[in-house]
Amino acid sequence: MAERWSFLDTFEPNFRPLVVIELAKGTKEETIEWFTKRIVDKKTNGGEYSMIFCAQLLVKPLIMENGDKNIYLVGASHLRLLLGAETVGLVKECNDNSMRTFTYSSRKTFKDFADDNHNFLTMAECQYIIKHELDNLRAKDEKIIPGYPQAKLYPGKSIVRRLLTSGILVQIFPLHDREELKKLRHSWYGRVKVGYQPLDEIRCYFGETIALYFGFLEYFTFALIPMAVIGIPYYVFAWEDYDKYVMFATFNLLWSTVILEVWKRICALMTYRWGTLLMKRQFEEPRPGFHGVLGINPVTGREEPVYSSIKRQIRIYLVSLPFVCLCLYFSLYVMMIYFDLEQWALDYHEENQSNFSNLMLFVPSIIYAVVIEIMNRIYRYAAEFLTSWENHRLESSYQNHLILKVLVFNFLNCFASLFYIAFVLFDMKLLRQSLATLLITSQILNQFAESLLPYWLQKRHKKRMKKRMCSLKTDTDLSLVEQVNLEKEMGTYFGTFDDYLELFLQFGYVSLFSCVYPLAAVFAVLNNITEIYSDALKMCRVYKRPFAEPTANIGVWQLAFETMSVISVVTNCILIGMSPQVNALFADSKTDLILTVALVEHLLLAIKFIMAFVIPDKPRDIQLKLAKLEFESLEALKQQ
Amino acid sequence: MAERWSFLDTFEPNFRPLVVIELAKGTKEETIEWFTKRIVDKKTNGGEYSMIFCAQLLVKPLIMENGDKNIYLVGASHLRLLLGAETVGLVKECNDNSMRTFTYSSRKTFKDFADDNHNFLTMAECQYIIKHELDNLRAKDEKIIPGYPQAKLYPGKSIVRRLLTSGILVQIFPLHDREELKKLRHSWYGRVKVGYQPLDEIRCYFGETIALYFGFLEYFTFALIPMAVIGIPYYVFAWEDYDKYVMFATFNLLWSTVILEVWKRICALMTYRWGTLLMKRQFEEPRPGFHGVLGINPVTGREEPVYSSIKRQIRIYLVSLPFVCLCLYFSLYVMMIYFDLEQWALDYHEENQSNFSNLMLFVPSIIYAVVIEIMNRIYRYAAEFLTSWENHRLESSYQNHLILKVLVFNFLNCFASLFYIAFVLFDMKLLRQSLATLLITSQILNQFAESLLPYWLQKRHKKRMKKRMCSLKTDTDLSLVEQVNLEKEMGTYFGTFDDYLELFLQFGYVSLFSCVYPLAAVFAVLNNITEIYSDALKMCRVYKRPFAEPTANIGVWQLAFETMSVISVVTNCILIGMSPQVNALFADSKTDLILTVALVEHLLLAIKFIMAFVIPDKPRDIQLKLAKLEFESLEALKQQ
Repeated sequence: MAERWSFLDTFEPNFRPLVVIELAKGTKEETIEWFTKRIVDKKTNGGEYSMIFCAQLLVKPLIMENGDKNIYLVGASHLRLLLGAETVGLVKECNDNSMRTFTYSSRKTFKDFADDNHNFLTMAECQYIIKHELDNLRAKDEKIIPGYPQAKLYPGKSIVRRLLTSGILVQIFPLHDREELKKLRHSWYGRVKVGYQPLDEIRCYFGETIALYFGFLEYFTFALIPMAVIGIPYYVFAWEDYDKYVMFATFNLLWSTVILEVWKRICALMTYRWGTLLMKRQFEEPRPGFHGVLGINPVTGREEPVYSSIKRQIRIYLVSLPFVCLCLYFSLYVMMIYFDLEQWALDYHEENQSNFSNLMLFVPSIIYAVVIEIMNRIYRYAAEFLTSWENHRLESSYQNHLILKVLVFNFLNCFASLFYIAFVLFDMKLLRQSLATLLITSQILNQFAESLLPYWLQKRHKKRMKKRMCSLKTDTDLSLVEQVNLEKEMGTYFGTFDDYLELFLQFGYVSLFSCVYPLAAVFAVLNNITEIYSDALKMCRVYKRPFAEPTANIGVWQLAFETMSVISVVTNCILIGMSPQVNALFADSKTDLILTVALVEHLLLAIKFIMAFVIPDKPRDIQLKLAKLEFESLEALKQQ
Repeated sequence: MAERWSFLDTFEPNFRPLVVIELAKGTKEETIEWFTKRIVDKKTNGGEYSMIFCAQLLVKPLIMENGDKNIYLVGASHLRLLLGAETVGLVKECNDNSMRTFTYSSRKTFKDFADDNHNFLTMAECQYIIKHELDNLRAKDEKIIPGYPQAKLYPGKSIVRRLLTSGILVQIFPLHDREELKKLRHSWYGRVKVGYQPLDEIRCYFGETIALYFGFLEYFTFALIPMAVIGIPYYVFAWEDYDKYVMFATFNLLWSTVILEVWKRICALMTYRWGTLLMKRQFEEPRPGFHGVLGINPVTGREEPVYSSIKRQIRIYLVSLPFVCLCLYFSLYVMMIYFDLEQWALDYHEENQSNFSNLMLFVPSIIYAVVIEIMNRIYRYAAEFLTSWENHRLESSYQNHLILKVLVFNFLNCFASLFYIAFVLFDMKLLRQSLATLLITSQILNQFAESLLPYWLQKRHKKRMKKRMCSLKTDTDLSLVEQVNLEKEMGTYFGTFDDYLELFLQFGYVSLFSCVYPLAAVFAVLNNITEIYSDALKMCRVYKRPFAEPTANIGVWQLAFETMSVISVVTNCILIGMSPQVNALFADSKTDLILTVALVEHLLLAIKFIMAFVIPDKPRDIQLKLAKLEFESLEALKQQ
């Protein structure tokens, strides 16, 4: 392996900038020199452990119009990128149409590979490889960052991470490819058309995580259409018969199981095609924020920071878990105060009947909404801090724990009041009203706050920038300096978390109380259609290009949606049991009613679990392909 | 690969008989010649596909005292067995204490390997290898078995399977090792001692499947002890307070979840040590009964029979499933007739009050017991036929489908009457009485029918045999002819199915109605202690030695036990809700009572699922070892 790296030259005739590094203005020369040397140095120059101490990439300073020299462009030679693709374990299609882990030595067997074909790796993959190398630049024997004695280092600490936390490094982001982006925009949302999104192109440009989100959004929208179609006549004809409601709810519950199971299969199909289904979890390097004493990883045998799993468990179960429970309790407490305030405002209005008292009726809701928003934000920070403090080795594990924490809290904040109205106040009319209000307002606010507002701000900013540069060029004509200047001011996309959360809560509105408000699915479908366009706009126009992140599935969100669908069986059964029509049917015995409802609920749950068990998670041909690869890999081990 | 086989010689100076083949008396010479030639022929002699057409083993006829020549002993050279171990994918311990798939070329790296150490493979492993080779002897271009025109063959058909179904081959069984067996018997049940069973020795002698059953039986017995200890005072002090019952039931439910989760971890520990955890499912060859047209297996690329998965699915869902449902319905119907008969007998007795009427009281139970037994047997045959007709490629898949079919039916037959008494008749006293009767009688009958009766028959038969041979030697002094003569008449052990089924039903008696009859756990513990001994006796003394079968877990039984534990949450909650003490507590509102019970039930179920989710299925060090192996295997693929 080592000798291959020495062939690499740091000089490349046609330097293609891929990633931008923005340092703080006035960063000391010696720091810049040390940092760029680390990025450029050959892997073979550092002795035994050189693999994690140097990156062997290309760096060029970008001199701005005002003479500032704090921005650097990072690229890499074609050969370096191919070796990097091997390091990160990219999976590519072979000439025989099977998917295999890319290795430099077997490069000739891969489809579309040619030594002069620089498009074998997509730009997003190249940027991912560079990011991976930069993130894994680790301190050797430095105690501090040269020039900054207060920025401590220890062996194995990620250099980029420390530079970021000390404020020396402002940001690292991948450059947009104006040509490609224009093409993508056109095929994605440029023309009015009915059809699927260009998911493969999205994946090539933005990476698997984002493509999978859009894939899920599209799939989910299609999956909701049957519910919406069945839901419309309930509204149009104002059906109130209980048997129709029961039918709708039953269909809803079984349907939601089916769509979640089928999604797993579709997801496996997509990620197999993209190669991420085969990428091994073991290859994941420790996340940049992970710290610990330098030791030997028992799996790979490589030297890297290690951290005791027991310590992590203790932190999770003895600190994080109690904290989350406390927050949940506090959130419920606040909700109870809100209902008290509401009651008090109502009493006050009935006593006084003045304009002022009429106005007072809205005060509790407004206060509650504001308080919830504040709590959500504070909790989010706390959750991020705690999860980071739990010191997960893998980014995926960190994400899962963070998502789980935020999810539970958001679920409670969103639905606790609806649960209270439904199962404590027993007010179906108020429930339907609250549900409709919450669903529609949250959708409108989200669309506005998420995409249109930033888009408008971004547009204004761009115009101002262009005016300042005294030129009115179109996007594609921008010089590199102008492009970097424009992009570095764009907002940062913080991942698909909030987008999934929005879908998750929408799924809750649609399924938890579906038999009370069948129209919810219709609104969800309408929202999702515009959501696709506004999210696409957001990705292409509003935010900096995000780094591609390979993923094989939607991770903990699958579990979250499945849990929601189990909870919705319980809530819907109770709601149907509480409806006056059903009550009239069991007029003589309330006990019989409850027993029947409980029986039906258990039956539905049993059917759900059997269905989830019977439907295989992966389509048969994917199963076969995976089995074949595993068989080959074992045969290979035998040959050794 | 092929050249290695040519080194092998069919001549081996010290032939060690491993497996016995008993042909029908009067089998034609040409058939015997053809069959033994197939077994002995070198793998290299058959051209391209020779691997599955010849076995390259050693065969010797055993001439009986009466001159019969229908029994053949099969052995193999040491080298042949090592190559066979590679073919079946045995996993052995290496010098560095890691477990690796054995290959002939890497043999030197394995612990205890030496070219002259013939104990590197245990006798059970050797026999398994030979059985695997014999089972996979497949027809090449023969249309019939030579000498038997009615026994048709087609390319790829298992020869042994066809010989068995045509009655030419009576049986194939592995020989006991008298010395080893004596040692094993001594350390297993020979002396009265308190302690664990010698599971590793059992595994060496009988293989993993049987060792895992005994491991599970032992673990389950230990796990039941806390329940039994807590259950005793309920009986001694005749506690009837509802809070104590609730406490016992809650403990029981959570405990049963914990023990099932912990079992997975212990099982992983054991099977890792035994190497079966790492054996790949893909390596499983098609089961002998599997048929189809000869095609290319998409996974291995080898030629073997293939059968459309869709056809199998159709057979499963359109034939087997409706049939099972019909049988279940029929079984319930019979139960209802039984309760009618019972009522009728009671009425008759009350009217007449004679001795005859008193006797008549027992008639329905007797009839029902007989009918159930008959139904069980017929159903078992039908289930075996159907599962075989479903044409599963893998033995494990066949077993799982068979077990599932038989399980559901047995569950209904055993517990339907108890459910009826509990939840339709609401007769707690009768429930406790029926439960005790069923549990105790079934345990006594089982122990008797399973081990003691066959043991006694076997002993009588042995004496008769010995008398006929006019010698009164002890077991270890028997000549080979005498030993084979003795063993071929012993009963055949049909696998662990019935043993697991017994445990499963016992688990049902203990957990489903635990709050009604806490003493059940005590009986279960007592039964299991004697069960270990009687099952050990059965394995060592009563049955022919079974072929070893590598397995990594208890398969579908894990799921069965987990499902039972979920059902028991529901039943116990209902039972507690029905108890007069709890009813007295909610005297004013039955609705409140039912709602509380439902709430508690859902909470318990939620806790169960969270616990099952949180407890990892494999201990951390096993996870690490597996990850390391996977990493290595991928690195190996890269090096290619």
